[in-house]
Amino acid sequence: MRVLSGIQPTGRFHLGNYFGAIRQYIELQHHDQAFYFIADLHALTTIRDKKQLRELTQDAALDLLALGLDPEQATLYQQSDVPEVTELTWLLMTVTQMSLLEKCHAYKDKIAKGLAADAGLFTYPVLMAADILAYDSNLVPVGQDQVQHLEVTRDIAQRFNHIYEKEVFVLPEGHVLKETSKVPGTDGEKMSKSYNNTIGIFEPPKKLRKKFMSIKTDSTPVEESKDPETCSVFGLYKLFANDEEQQALAERYRAGGMGYGDAKQTLYEKAMEHFAEARESREKLEQNLSDVEDILQAGAQKAREKAREVLDRAREACGL
Amino acid sequence: MRVLSGIQPTGRFHLGNYFGAIRQYIELQHHDQAFYFIADLHALTTIRDKKQLRELTQDAALDLLALGLDPEQATLYQQSDVPEVTELTWLLMTVTQMSLLEKCHAYKDKIAKGLAADAGLFTYPVLMAADILAYDSNLVPVGQDQVQHLEVTRDIAQRFNHIYEKEVFVLPEGHVLKETSKVPGTDGEKMSKSYNNTIGIFEPPKKLRKKFMSIKTDSTPVEESKDPETCSVFGLYKLFANDEEQQALAERYRAGGMGYGDAKQTLYEKAMEHFAEARESREKLEQNLSDVEDILQAGAQKAREKAREVLDRAREACGL
Repeated sequence: MRVLSGIQPTGRFHLGNYFGAIRQYIELQHHDQAFYFIADLHALTTIRDKKQLRELTQDAALDLLALGLDPEQATLYQQSDVPEVTELTWLLMTVTQMSLLEKCHAYKDKIAKGLAADAGLFTYPVLMAADILAYDSNLVPVGQDQVQHLEVTRDIAQRFNHIYEKEVFVLPEGHVLKETSKVPGTDGEKMSKSYNNTIGIFEPPKKLRKKFMSIKTDSTPVEESKDPETCSVFGLYKLFANDEEQQALAERYRAGGMGYGDAKQTLYEKAMEHFAEARESREKLEQNLSDVEDILQAGAQKAREKAREVLDRAREACGL
Repeated sequence: MRVLSGIQPTGRFHLGNYFGAIRQYIELQHHDQAFYFIADLHALTTIRDKKQLRELTQDAALDLLALGLDPEQATLYQQSDVPEVTELTWLLMTVTQMSLLEKCHAYKDKIAKGLAADAGLFTYPVLMAADILAYDSNLVPVGQDQVQHLEVTRDIAQRFNHIYEKEVFVLPEGHVLKETSKVPGTDGEKMSKSYNNTIGIFEPPKKLRKKFMSIKTDSTPVEESKDPETCSVFGLYKLFANDEEQQALAERYRAGGMGYGDAKQTLYEKAMEHFAEARESREKLEQNLSDVEDILQAGAQKAREKAREVLDRAREACGL
């Protein structure tokens, strides 16, 4: 069984990324074989600054390793270090029906907004298919927004297998990530880079505290009873805290006499505690960047071996 | 100065290919550096049979070498042996505007006919751009139908250079192949595989003679004077014969007393004479297929060296 997932280095990771995806990826690494990659080739469709791309790619590696991705358990690599994937992309492109790509929402949404799209955005489900199929991946953890693209991968794989009358590609199954209710941003909306309401996982403590303190709350006076279930501060606290801790804070909400500032401080402390080990680990990694580079290189080598095997199968089927 | 051109192995080469392109490519090999490739990755958009693709690719190599492509003068390789090209294709894809590809006629024509298109047909100008840009090609001999795609290559190169603020890619110039008037097919229309009116360069003599004999002519009786300028037989003869020979046959046309069968026989003999050396050479090559393989491998190695250099430049500019 092989689990595969890619993560785009298009911004520093925030709590929404963590609870919505990263934490779940890391749990999945205990499956037989986990392949996780930093999707720098996909990021090129939005990031067009070499310094920024390099930094974000390195940060992604540091963040994932600090948060518990274990290179002994999982294969971590940079997408662009496996050229077999772009070679496979072309083979898949020749059997991908235009109508399939035209239906994909990332492209459709952009067009609907009247924005000019590049061919990279339009064809990125084909690159994604190659990312997945190149490793005979069985299970692909995806967010709700990627379910459609995984279907496209399956369609492309099936069409290739059908045209060349051979089971060249393994059909992957999606593992839809739990939506962990919603991870609220500082404005109460879903936390997302595009809403500018994110709280970064590894922000410096002072800045992090300021972010937590800025979370929008209602204007219920200190002395009055408050509803934890409608409060973003409590919504975030729930993600970090165990049942007992949640109950304790909920009681303080309902009892009255507690200001939101106190709840925010409790949340801040809990978050600091939750990521304390990861922060320490990240600092160590920062001091040993060449070790991180070694991990990525070793991962790429392992990934290439597998990708080579699958690519050879596909080339043979086409007559290349 | 580097000349580059690709030729699709989508069918055995015919006289239309020869006079319209191949002969001119071969003349151009005396430029400083000529890179010619057999475009098997492009062929995948139409050929989906591994045996057929392999045979046509080998035939293309044999035909080109037999017709005078000199591996000491020109670098001959198989497109799919240079994986750097597909890697570059993705980098270019991310900067290619959809509107540019939507305008391309190969795709537009297919859609206009109400046919379903694959993404390979839609994005093939991007692969073509990578084919060209990967080698810092200066001059690209193209048929009239490829002029638009070369413009797309220039547009993509310029946009990449502009976005990444660096002269990463050399802008190629087109060298529009002479239309050598028209090469008429057996039905008098332009010789083209899609009209099923072709005469293959290396067809067995008996079959070839039959093809020439089947050329459509008008029903002017033997004894009457005939107009060489409106006759497909004479149209083909002109491509093979020198001025003196042309004049002699034109006189026989105009004098009357010569049947079209005679003219066809004259044309057949002239064609056999023209390709006599190439036929002999091809037979030898067929006996030494491993030499042909060695030529392609040596070509690919040389092509890869150059493509690696250009790809590294492009990756560096993006931050990969």
